Amino acid sequence: MLRFEPKNPDYRAATTRVFDGQPAMRTLGISIVALEAGEVALSMPYSASLAQQSGFIHAGIITTALDTACGMAAFTLMPPQSEILTVEFKTNLLNPAKGERFRFAATVVKPGRTLTVCEAKAFAMQDGKETLVAAMTGTLMALPQRDR
Amino acid sequence: MLRFEPKNPDYRAATTRVFDGQPAMRTLGISIVALEAGEVALSMPYSASLAQQSGFIHAGIITTALDTACGMAAFTLMPPQSEILTVEFKTNLLNPAKGERFRFAATVVKPGRTLTVCEAKAFAMQDGKETLVAAMTGTLMALPQRDR
Amino acid sequence: MLRFEPKNPDYRAATTRVFDGQPAMRTLGISIVALEAGEVALSMPYSASLAQQSGFIHAGIITTALDTACGMAAFTLMPPQSEILTVEFKTNLLNPAKGERFRFAATVVKPGRTLTVCEAKAFAMQDGKETLVAAMTGTLMALPQRDR
Amino acid sequence: MLRFEPKNPDYRAATTRVFDGQPAMRTLGISIVALEAGEVALSMPYSASLAQQSGFIHAGIITTALDTACGMAAFTLMPPQSEILTVEFKTNLLNPAKGERFRFAATVVKPGRTLTVCEAKAFAMQDGKETLVAAMTGTLMALPQRDR
Repeated sequence: MLRFEPKNPDYRAATTRVFDGQPAMRTLGISIVALEAGEVALSMPYSASLAQQSGFIHAGIITTALDTACGMAAFTLMPPQSEILTVEFKTNLLNPAKGERFRFAATVVKPGRTLTVCEAKAFAMQDGKETLVAAMTGTLMALPQRDR
Repeated sequence: MLRFEPKNPDYRAATTRVFDGQPAMRTLGISIVALEAGEVALSMPYSASLAQQSGFIHAGIITTALDTACGMAAFTLMPPQSEILTVEFKTNLLNPAKGERFRFAATVVKPGRTLTVCEAKAFAMQDGKETLVAAMTGTLMALPQRDR
Repeated sequence: MLRFEPKNPDYRAATTRVFDGQPAMRTLGISIVALEAGEVALSMPYSASLAQQSGFIHAGIITTALDTACGMAAFTLMPPQSEILTVEFKTNLLNPAKGERFRFAATVVKPGRTLTVCEAKAFAMQDGKETLVAAMTGTLMALPQRDR
Repeated sequence: MLRFEPKNPDYRAATTRVFDGQPAMRTLGISIVALEAGEVALSMPYSASLAQQSGFIHAGIITTALDTACGMAAFTLMPPQSEILTVEFKTNLLNPAKGERFRFAATVVKPGRTLTVCEAKAFAMQDGKETLVAAMTGTLMALPQRDR
């Protein structure tokens, strides 16, 4: 595993601040469970209100958590005062998203001045057992100032 | 534009039933605004509770609506008694998802017995003007029986 | 269809120059058949030497032509002296790539100062009939100077 | 790392046979360097005839090798008499593909009766040093008989 050198000594507080600034995370019940330079893990409990027609969590909701995990992992390596936005992501759905709780683990694959690529996996936790439910690769962009 | 021949004469009712069976759609305030064989449009009002840190709708929420639009468009062409699941999708985020309301238009690009590929676009509507905010290509799978 | 305003009045010559600078295009027999601001079409004859195990053109070769079509379409809208590189692309394979000749049509979906998103389709031509064989969405990046 | 149980006791010979049946692999100079159940590595020397305008190997050629690596990794886990085809893949380009030789390592992430998802990475080798140049996630499909 690569070791990354954060450019922002205050990256933990800065990343947590961006995460806390996302109302969608509160709405979906998503929280940070691990945060290192280039690596972030999130957690979300099952909620029937976020299910699709079979009772599994909607693929888009799983993707919302994966995208945020990627964004936060990328953000830990960005310079102070950066803004971050998602350029693109792809999700492969691998198993039904059924479980009591879900874990989302993202890692930076390639940091860059402008673009950062991350990979993330979603796991369903049921009866103490974890199942891989989805995989994402995504591209995040750092905006030094408020323009694109 | 291709004209598609639905295999299920009752495709409108069947597709609406699957959509209505998704609690996530109610939670996010998403509704069907158009439904033809191979083409579906959804609508969602802006909600601050679904925003990311800049007040724009979270890319994952936009993706949730795009994925459902693709799934419903694909489902209109599937035989009666099919079940549908998402195999994969990719979203490119093109403009900030800011607006009073959002529209999601999906079209089947290639129907298939097992796999169907759809394209979908998300538009933000503000002051009577539409802006393209995201584009998805996704693969949906028809399950004839309850196994994969 | 969007009308695009090229920033480089000499965009035709500039784009053709970049295309001609790619040895891979000559190796694969790919040529430009149409070139407008934001839109490019390429053509490639069938070659058994580029086939996979069933005699169809390899998905990666189809992707090579689609990626170049996207890159050239994006490049037509970039300022003079730009360099271009591919950030990412996704290809959905829709039908077997069998035919006498192939056509690749790319369009810019969203131009940008740094990132441009394009869509492209590959068609197989056989006995005067065209079949859609693949669809790509890709992200291209403009480099103003020789750094990333 | 997951351990996979091949369904075809003869998977090595069967996979090698499919690989050898691809003229495109000979044309591009790609060979198998490792082959286990669920894991395949390929190798390709640099060739100026496969370069884009900066002398780096074209992203589509890198993708051709990654797709084949994914296909072969997926095929090792398929039952005897299967046919395989690529459903879709996405490539993120991470660093310029410059080097004396390239290595492509694919792993099955999720095997399935119909669909198998693989991840692959491309590395450039120069002066004894390896650099990650691209990452792919792809979906492969097993066809039990000659129909889709």
